[in-house]
Amino acid sequence: LYSDKVLEHFAAPHNVGELPDADGVGEVGNAKCGDIMKMYIKVDDGKISDVKFKTFGCGAAIATSSIATDMIKGASIEDALKLTNSAVVEALDGLPASKVHCSVLAEQAVKAALADYYRKQ
Amino acid sequence: LYSDKVLEHFAAPHNVGELPDADGVGEVGNAKCGDIMKMYIKVDDGKISDVKFKTFGCGAAIATSSIATDMIKGASIEDALKLTNSAVVEALDGLPASKVHCSVLAEQAVKAALADYYRKQ
Ligand code: FES
Repeated sequence: LYSDKVLEHFAAPHNVGELPDADGVGEVGNAKCGDIMKMYIKVDDGKISDVKFKTFGCGAAIATSSIATDMIKGASIEDALKLTNSAVVEALDGLPASKVHCSVLAEQAVKAALADYYRKQ
Repeated sequence: LYSDKVLEHFAAPHNVGELPDADGVGEVGNAKCGDIMKMYIKVDDGKISDVKFKTFGCGAAIATSSIATDMIKGASIEDALKLTNSAVVEALDGLPASKVHCSVLAEQAVKAALADYYRKQ
């Protein structure tokens, strides 16, 4: 049902937590299941120097956020804004069709956190 | 949004895992979000001597299963069959309305595992 990469990131997700001194915070909700995702980013010299997330969402939401935060950590803001849901799902070697709605949270939370960062400038 | 008890059980869920020598195994799915829950029980002298669960479900599914397995561990089969979803949610000091559908997995998985146990007798 789930790829080895999904199970790995679910069992030991990367970048879980909060950043008290975040430069941007994004909070997004999943209308389908009522789950919530919160993402914190730290920006230095136009690059994402740190990122953490917290969610009450399911294993697919946890795994996609784990790999999405890996993908944007150290990236420029421009590259982070280009992150798509399908790139995240591909990096996980796929997700069951019934769980693709969960993966949307990660992409949305990254964009919400960056929007919050720009709003604060 | 979530009670302290829900957050406690989400952060450090009880009885997570599998029982290779289970007397009954129940697997149930959540049509709304596509999540799956698997519950394993061991029965000795008409009592549930051990119970473990595995899920890819969200924090609410994890917390309700954690407390539900606590509630049935050591209980008679009759008492375990009487476990209701609302008793589980009450034991957690409540759940947001949008997450009550997740808590149903725990009650259903307990009943499915007991049904499997009876089938095997
Ligand atoms: S079912 Fe809610 S995030 Fe996956």
